[in-house]
Amino acid sequence: MSKLETVVNEIVAEMRDMPQRGEVASYIPELARVDPKAFGLVVIDAEGKVAAAGDADTPFSIQSISKVFTLTLALGKFGDRLWQRVGREPSGSRFNSIVQLEYEKGIPRNPFINAGAIAVTDAILGGHQPREALGEILRFMQYVAADDTIYIDDKVAASEQRTGFGNIALANYMKSFGVIEGPVDYTLGVYFHHCAIAMSCRQLAMAARYLAHFGNDPTTVLPVVTPERARRINALMLTCGHYDGSGEFAYRVGLPGKSGVGGGIMAIVPGKASIAVWSPGLDASGNSQLGQLALERLSKRMEWSIFGA
Amino acid sequence: MSKLETVVNEIVAEMRDMPQRGEVASYIPELARVDPKAFGLVVIDAEGKVAAAGDADTPFSIQSISKVFTLTLALGKFGDRLWQRVGREPSGSRFNSIVQLEYEKGIPRNPFINAGAIAVTDAILGGHQPREALGEILRFMQYVAADDTIYIDDKVAASEQRTGFGNIALANYMKSFGVIEGPVDYTLGVYFHHCAIAMSCRQLAMAARYLAHFGNDPTTVLPVVTPERARRINALMLTCGHYDGSGEFAYRVGLPGKSGVGGGIMAIVPGKASIAVWSPGLDASGNSQLGQLALERLSKRMEWSIFGA
Amino acid sequence: MSKLETVVNEIVAEMRDMPQRGEVASYIPELARVDPKAFGLVVIDAEGKVAAAGDADTPFSIQSISKVFTLTLALGKFGDRLWQRVGREPSGSRFNSIVQLEYEKGIPRNPFINAGAIAVTDAILGGHQPREALGEILRFMQYVAADDTIYIDDKVAASEQRTGFGNIALANYMKSFGVIEGPVDYTLGVYFHHCAIAMSCRQLAMAARYLAHFGNDPTTVLPVVTPERARRINALMLTCGHYDGSGEFAYRVGLPGKSGVGGGIMAIVPGKASIAVWSPGLDASGNSQLGQLALERLSKRMEWSIFGA
Amino acid sequence: MSKLETVVNEIVAEMRDMPQRGEVASYIPELARVDPKAFGLVVIDAEGKVAAAGDADTPFSIQSISKVFTLTLALGKFGDRLWQRVGREPSGSRFNSIVQLEYEKGIPRNPFINAGAIAVTDAILGGHQPREALGEILRFMQYVAADDTIYIDDKVAASEQRTGFGNIALANYMKSFGVIEGPVDYTLGVYFHHCAIAMSCRQLAMAARYLAHFGNDPTTVLPVVTPERARRINALMLTCGHYDGSGEFAYRVGLPGKSGVGGGIMAIVPGKASIAVWSPGLDASGNSQLGQLALERLSKRMEWSIFGA
Repeated sequence: MSKLETVVNEIVAEMRDMPQRGEVASYIPELARVDPKAFGLVVIDAEGKVAAAGDADTPFSIQSISKVFTLTLALGKFGDRLWQRVGREPSGSRFNSIVQLEYEKGIPRNPFINAGAIAVTDAILGGHQPREALGEILRFMQYVAADDTIYIDDKVAASEQRTGFGNIALANYMKSFGVIEGPVDYTLGVYFHHCAIAMSCRQLAMAARYLAHFGNDPTTVLPVVTPERARRINALMLTCGHYDGSGEFAYRVGLPGKSGVGGGIMAIVPGKASIAVWSPGLDASGNSQLGQLALERLSKRMEWSIFGA
Repeated sequence: MSKLETVVNEIVAEMRDMPQRGEVASYIPELARVDPKAFGLVVIDAEGKVAAAGDADTPFSIQSISKVFTLTLALGKFGDRLWQRVGREPSGSRFNSIVQLEYEKGIPRNPFINAGAIAVTDAILGGHQPREALGEILRFMQYVAADDTIYIDDKVAASEQRTGFGNIALANYMKSFGVIEGPVDYTLGVYFHHCAIAMSCRQLAMAARYLAHFGNDPTTVLPVVTPERARRINALMLTCGHYDGSGEFAYRVGLPGKSGVGGGIMAIVPGKASIAVWSPGLDASGNSQLGQLALERLSKRMEWSIFGA
Repeated sequence: MSKLETVVNEIVAEMRDMPQRGEVASYIPELARVDPKAFGLVVIDAEGKVAAAGDADTPFSIQSISKVFTLTLALGKFGDRLWQRVGREPSGSRFNSIVQLEYEKGIPRNPFINAGAIAVTDAILGGHQPREALGEILRFMQYVAADDTIYIDDKVAASEQRTGFGNIALANYMKSFGVIEGPVDYTLGVYFHHCAIAMSCRQLAMAARYLAHFGNDPTTVLPVVTPERARRINALMLTCGHYDGSGEFAYRVGLPGKSGVGGGIMAIVPGKASIAVWSPGLDASGNSQLGQLALERLSKRMEWSIFGA
Repeated sequence: MSKLETVVNEIVAEMRDMPQRGEVASYIPELARVDPKAFGLVVIDAEGKVAAAGDADTPFSIQSISKVFTLTLALGKFGDRLWQRVGREPSGSRFNSIVQLEYEKGIPRNPFINAGAIAVTDAILGGHQPREALGEILRFMQYVAADDTIYIDDKVAASEQRTGFGNIALANYMKSFGVIEGPVDYTLGVYFHHCAIAMSCRQLAMAARYLAHFGNDPTTVLPVVTPERARRINALMLTCGHYDGSGEFAYRVGLPGKSGVGGGIMAIVPGKASIAVWSPGLDASGNSQLGQLALERLSKRMEWSIFGA
């Protein structure tokens, strides 16, 4: 058993009986049904070897993790023009804050807070039908994960569409500044559905490979983006990937990553590994409590922090 | 000539005639006198070899760069208890914003915005006399830079003490919440003076070595902090080191760094190099305009981004 | 000719050729078509005598002035329980600000900013159909104005429904805090339609009589509310009736009043008179520029300020 | 016994045993020593007849009530030019909020929040020595109260000077925008001292006569300001006189008034009466809890609301 496999197994064992697991997200009713004891961890190294433990193959709602993939798609379509519609600074605010939008005329701070991801979704939508845009996003994720079985959980999407008033508010508020171009309902329809994509840790760790390796190894990694773009997306994950817990994640874990309120976190070690962890309980900032702890231990034991080992 | 030396020379040559150099800080009258054409760049690699070009030996006012060293000192004294007085999240606001303090009961977001650095300075001050605390800070910087000639520019300190009303406001405001413990005048006296430390790029690049190498090479790097602490300070520099331009710096440069309104930026490449650059003109966020551009080019040409090369 | 008639005629003459008339509201496309030169002024004294001049009988879109009548209706239904859903303090913000809602958990500051009026509309809606609630509001206004010809301008309502993204955002945002109980579309439908009621100055001055005289004179004033409630609504108009220009209006005019972005202002002199003025051009706070000036002159010449004459 | 005397006696009797008296201000140590059971009420009618009950002659710290008199003085010196340095809108914020200052470049919202009163004090100070400015303010108050025994409680002033960090922050923050012209220490010295003026309810009710009667009765009221200026100061007291409880006070009491954290409230009935009440316990907004209740009852029983009786 490799060191990596040993460490992954250790961590999953340590997490099994942790008493403090955080709170499962309840604002989307469908998400509240998840088993709070679920835990999965998958790491794929540069050679493509997979270390997996726990609930590594159970699909869960990736939620905000989808924002990394929609950002990648939108940068592919628009390049740097995308930054006219969304900033790239940490917001210092909660994932659903609307305050900053008022002070900055409807331009969201970054593509990883809800408002920013809605603006990015609107860019992808362009003049197309929601169905087409959504198909494009799903196919892209199947492509980067090399797995055609990835699907959208329509129940979760419908649940959020019925109850996501905060996001409806954000989208309409941006529309009032002209930052959203399409019909708000279209944009939100696509947004709620791509957040409702279900993936397992194994699929997510596969999907993150282009960010960890940016096409340098054609036998295992599909060409997706230029190295420079991958670096930049990684930088955004590091500074903005965990809402108002981004500084904390950088401080404790030291890896670019993106969390979702479904309890998943996707992270990468540049040139070395892609990682997905899943534990549904969240901390006060909306990030997986045990997911962060597991990554902190993984990063430390593998000496993977990008800030020095 | 090594590749590094060639790149450093190239960049300094490229910067010489850049027409858009930003605006020299004018809110501290003494700083406004600096020559806007000055430019220096020094890089020290893991073996201790120095690549220097431009005004590499001209002392300039390090201003907020001193916050990295006071944070290091305070963490040495208080360990994680320090985080009861200051947070570690990006603020999403300007360096001198007071808004966040009101909403968060006087606890500054991070140690690199002005309010946070004042709180850290107050922690260092403890019950001591300002003179003692200041001496300790100065000696620490002389130690990490291995250079006893580093000094405090009293004119700059006096200039800021006469005109630094925004900082006086921040300190008193925190005092009203009990976050500042000592007499406000003492704390500010020490703060203004350590911001007024004058260093050259060469001295600054030397002083940053403990963050780049954390004591792994005893022949060249003095033992200062544990590797873990160095990583964490680096993480804070990455997420918070450039005020509301921190995301931009991470995106473009991809290195942990800290800027000062004197036009200096100190940065590190974990395990590889420490860097100091100086160009007095600032951008709208208060960061050296050409300093950032130079680091962007250096990071790219040397393939040093921590987000993948 | 009475002194009042003389003063009213004088003022209308003075306003005719004022060069600086403000900007006609353009954010609701249908409102932008109004003639910026239109001007009307009607005052009805305690005996019911009417002094009218200018475009006194041209219907215009009352917009936010309807908020006074929906507040009256809602207080009649819920009494002081209404104040659990909306505050009664000046907001210090623009009419459409969403910032305060985030800091105060979705409870709007007062019933005269947009968010507050939407919350009041939702209370009136209760479990009813929009059509019923709207019918009740319209009949109430026809009753207090003693005029069955008052109508809803469906074009204006439709125009706002298509473009009122800021208000849709406010309603959904409050819904996300549970402050809006009904379906957001229902509440907004009723809101947009009661704002689209069209009235002339004459009708509006009639409708305001219950606030000026609170049923003390049964021959001319219909019993509507208790004297205490009338006083309280008047107090709210004084402190909150002109958005972030409320202090200015109190300072210059010294009368309780409510403005709308259609350019109308309704005001009362307790025990003495009810007033309506209309001039479509708005100042930076969204209040009729000449309407305010006319009321300032009227209040001064008639010695009507409630702050001393 | 007149109706007014009867009502005043009744109210004082009712207040004597009220169990919920609010909290005595503790942030100024010297104020915390006051007897929470103290209660005084004095009303002076248009003929100069005095109705007094309770602790009518005990001096207390008038604190923010002094802001009305410094505003009067400053308007006398600068006229409408004063409004370049301070606004006249309700702030929607607490008395000591600093947030609005950042968003509005150091210009305080109105002269009755702390920041605004400090800016007004700075205007009065002009280039003079603090002692002169303070003498001028004290003499003005002795003049309007027709009582030379009014004095400054130096202990209270010293207590606030030692502990008033929030106000020191506000002043320095405005200074950083150039809104404060003199040395901050001078301005704050004068400010802390005029807030520390001690007056009894009787003296305060006398001092308020110029606002209630603006010089119309030369036998009893000293000429102080023009009727128009009195009206405008009254309007400001109505909209801004009780911090973020101003709307509530207008709604419940319906009179222009100004409160202080010493527990006093000064109020006026235009053309009819001047009033002072004192009860040290404060509500959450920093206004005298029983003082407001007493005024609500007084206004109701005497039918004095300016919003209709």
